[in-house]
Amino acid sequence: MTQQQSVYLDYAAATPVDERVLAAMQPYFCDRFYNPSSPYAPSVQVRRDVEDARHRIAQTIGVKPADVILTAGATESINLAMTAVGDGEIITSTIEHPAVLESAKQYSHTLIDVSSTGLIDVDDIVRTITPNTQLVSIGLANNELGTIQPVRRIADAIQRERDRRSQVGESRPLWLHTDASQGVGQLDMTVSRLGVDLLTLNSAKCYGPKQVGLLWRAPGVQLRPIIHGGGQEAGVRSGTENVPGVIGFATALEIAARTRNSETKRLQELRDTLQRHIESGIDIAEINGHQKKRLAGHLHVSVPGIDAERFVFMLESVGVYVATGSACAANHGTRSHVLEAVGMSAQQADGSLRLTLGRHTDDAAIEYAAEQIIIAVQSERDRIGL
Amino acid sequence: MTQQQSVYLDYAAATPVDERVLAAMQPYFCDRFYNPSSPYAPSVQVRRDVEDARHRIAQTIGVKPADVILTAGATESINLAMTAVGDGEIITSTIEHPAVLESAKQYSHTLIDVSSTGLIDVDDIVRTITPNTQLVSIGLANNELGTIQPVRRIADAIQRERDRRSQVGESRPLWLHTDASQGVGQLDMTVSRLGVDLLTLNSAKCYGPKQVGLLWRAPGVQLRPIIHGGGQEAGVRSGTENVPGVIGFATALEIAARTRNSETKRLQELRDTLQRHIESGIDIAEINGHQKKRLAGHLHVSVPGIDAERFVFMLESVGVYVATGSACAANHGTRSHVLEAVGMSAQQADGSLRLTLGRHTDDAAIEYAAEQIIIAVQSERDRIGL
Repeated sequence: MTQQQSVYLDYAAATPVDERVLAAMQPYFCDRFYNPSSPYAPSVQVRRDVEDARHRIAQTIGVKPADVILTAGATESINLAMTAVGDGEIITSTIEHPAVLESAKQYSHTLIDVSSTGLIDVDDIVRTITPNTQLVSIGLANNELGTIQPVRRIADAIQRERDRRSQVGESRPLWLHTDASQGVGQLDMTVSRLGVDLLTLNSAKCYGPKQVGLLWRAPGVQLRPIIHGGGQEAGVRSGTENVPGVIGFATALEIAARTRNSETKRLQELRDTLQRHIESGIDIAEINGHQKKRLAGHLHVSVPGIDAERFVFMLESVGVYVATGSACAANHGTRSHVLEAVGMSAQQADGSLRLTLGRHTDDAAIEYAAEQIIIAVQSERDRIGL
Repeated sequence: MTQQQSVYLDYAAATPVDERVLAAMQPYFCDRFYNPSSPYAPSVQVRRDVEDARHRIAQTIGVKPADVILTAGATESINLAMTAVGDGEIITSTIEHPAVLESAKQYSHTLIDVSSTGLIDVDDIVRTITPNTQLVSIGLANNELGTIQPVRRIADAIQRERDRRSQVGESRPLWLHTDASQGVGQLDMTVSRLGVDLLTLNSAKCYGPKQVGLLWRAPGVQLRPIIHGGGQEAGVRSGTENVPGVIGFATALEIAARTRNSETKRLQELRDTLQRHIESGIDIAEINGHQKKRLAGHLHVSVPGIDAERFVFMLESVGVYVATGSACAANHGTRSHVLEAVGMSAQQADGSLRLTLGRHTDDAAIEYAAEQIIIAVQSERDRIGL
């Protein structure tokens, strides 16, 4: 029997702060604590450090620093992005993160369906757009299934609609927002290649500190502030800057960009190994999400008949930490809206595990986790006679 | 000549994170990084640690933990507090922080004037209240002048208006909000003694991390979420919890509460010494704000005829860091709205310095700062023939 160890397979829910990120943040807590808006030299230096971080962040997504709005996390970024809808309407999908769905509810909005693999059909968006549509918001990669959306093709369709509006003299703008939080370090975040007008990123999903994020918006996109005050972040988002957080975020994004190619390859190999073990060791296992258009470190499995919540605790007892779905939904004791939206039966959904790999996952971790998952499934099947 | 040292006298703009606070936060970056909403044991422990921190925070202000909403700083807390206005009207004062003034602008609101010392007259509030008033927001201590407002007496007046409404069958509620950020560690924050219904606190003003804050609201106060999503903070404020931030904030508030009496006494003595030096060394110096109802560590001085912005840089060159007004206003190059509101002449306002003392201020710092301020003023007066 393998000696017990601890294997974390829930990087989609939270990532540890990278030691290099923490080291970069460290001086800004007790020593360089100054308010970046104060006029004396040490504060001016802190202001420069914040702006340097903004510059470094901007570089990782290929944009101008002045268009990067630093926020207290992806949820706030998304809520701010949604204000680009103005007096128009939003189109989003049934499988978006609650931050998107709940903030879309504040406006006139339409939800489009997705395929059984969680993939959005660009034609569905095209068919749903009306002259009143002002904002389309589609997550770059789904946080539960790992499915990667055709954001570039959605952007192209949106550009065609813009051209049409321009030709017929319709003045309503049309913007594309993507929450790319789940893809940092695995997908190319270059905004010009994504083709979006608004981009949300989350530090806590890429080995940076929690409650730090950004919203990038193309010049011309009008936002309505949701937090009013001292006028920081070009008046769009007030509040004294989270100096260590911003510095940490910049470092985290730089590491993610620098290691993306090798890390994606490494994670994909590990994930594929884990998938092979599970497929060969559990005959009734079903792999969910799109098998090709999928995050490298993401594996979503259903074992119909198994109670995934019970299963999470069985695995916990042998040191393997996995998720049943998104952490938020898990906490509310409700069935995942994503799994319902892709048409999973209750039995499939209730038997679903999300296994997400990350920077500290290695071969030994995968071998141990696979072994424990297979043992636990067998034990559950024996118990319930499945 | 005194050997050059560095003396920071701008604690009202930013405080260094206390070493004990940082030590409490430290484990939650890289090790206990888990998402508090995940179901496995290490996450459950993090959830417990967050709730324990909420409990400790609640104790320092004498409230139930469930009524404490953790936010990304005072600006967000204030914006959320303002939603308690519902479809009613807000009363606030002309000298509030921009976070209050700018978010009040989103609603029907009335500004009341203050005295030349920055003090609010409770009768002015009483006279301004109409049957449509639903929220009164008054900062506990003004961040520029340091003047402490009669919040308890305002609360009593509000209770009388509530009684009147109840007697005549008017159903509109009436709430009192105070942003007490500037007073933590110097004033009693016990909510029942303050008599308020909503209280904002800011971690960054009390030796905790930046961009962490809280809004306490009494049971019965209806808030409208401004950040929608996963439903954290009882649905009022979504977003994955800032675990290290919250733990740090709790530690900072506990230290502030524990040391309040001795620290207030110490700061007041130091401030009074500084004030005496300035009054005796600069014959044209004027001390602003209320001389009794004033934060212990706060000293606001005008030297009419002196250009305070120039003066800040002169002091910076000898290692003394002071503010001309609030950091936000300073950064925008505009004259302080607070100093205008208390009726200061342009010459007085432009010659104003805010000196705020804190935990690391000692006798030597005060002696050095007083000496340098007096030398610099004399040098300026010689230069301009004042």
